[in-house]
Amino acid sequence: MITESIDGVRLTTKANVYFDGKCVSHSYQLADGTKQSVGVVLAATLTFGTAAAEVMECVAGACEYKLDGSDAWQKSGPGEKFSVPANSKFDIRVAEAYHYICHYA
Amino acid sequence: MITESIDGVRLTTKANVYFDGKCVSHSYQLADGTKQSVGVVLAATLTFGTAAAEVMECVAGACEYKLDGSDAWQKSGPGEKFSVPANSKFDIRVAEAYHYICHYA
Repeated sequence: MITESIDGVRLTTKANVYFDGKCVSHSYQLADGTKQSVGVVLAATLTFGTAAAEVMECVAGACEYKLDGSDAWQKSGPGEKFSVPANSKFDIRVAEAYHYICHYA
Repeated sequence: MITESIDGVRLTTKANVYFDGKCVSHSYQLADGTKQSVGVVLAATLTFGTAAAEVMECVAGACEYKLDGSDAWQKSGPGEKFSVPANSKFDIRVAEAYHYICHYA
């Protein structure tokens, strides 16, 4: 199931711009204070570090990702999620666009 | 006054990507159904067309813009707004980043 919209959020208006704009996200808070962000990774191969653990949920497009310590690229498409541990990193490669929700676990 | 966050919105999770990612926005609806978007224009000179009239409100960074039929570039910075008529266009040039809220008038 694809999460197309999220209700009742407090949206931060200023975007987060990473890697010269290859990744752009907007942060928000749910009614219970939970922080998340929605974003898009454009055509690129990038490495992201994590502080908190994250769950990346695809809402459109697709990516391949490789968790730290793994040699296997895995695909993630609309409705699919993958988890990244805290204080870790992952590689992501995107051919066109990968639209996501980032949940902090 | 800078609008740093907006409460109680229904956020569309998929981004809008324009001009190969030089402009990325996320759309949302206010509780009363009003549609708006938050976005960022990165370093570029672009021309945007309008269908509905728009008010562009800067929340961070800065741009220069030139309305259709004008020869004058005007600056817009945090807390400032400019209006664009329906069925028109405007040029925008950004040195670093222009973070905005787009209101449809």
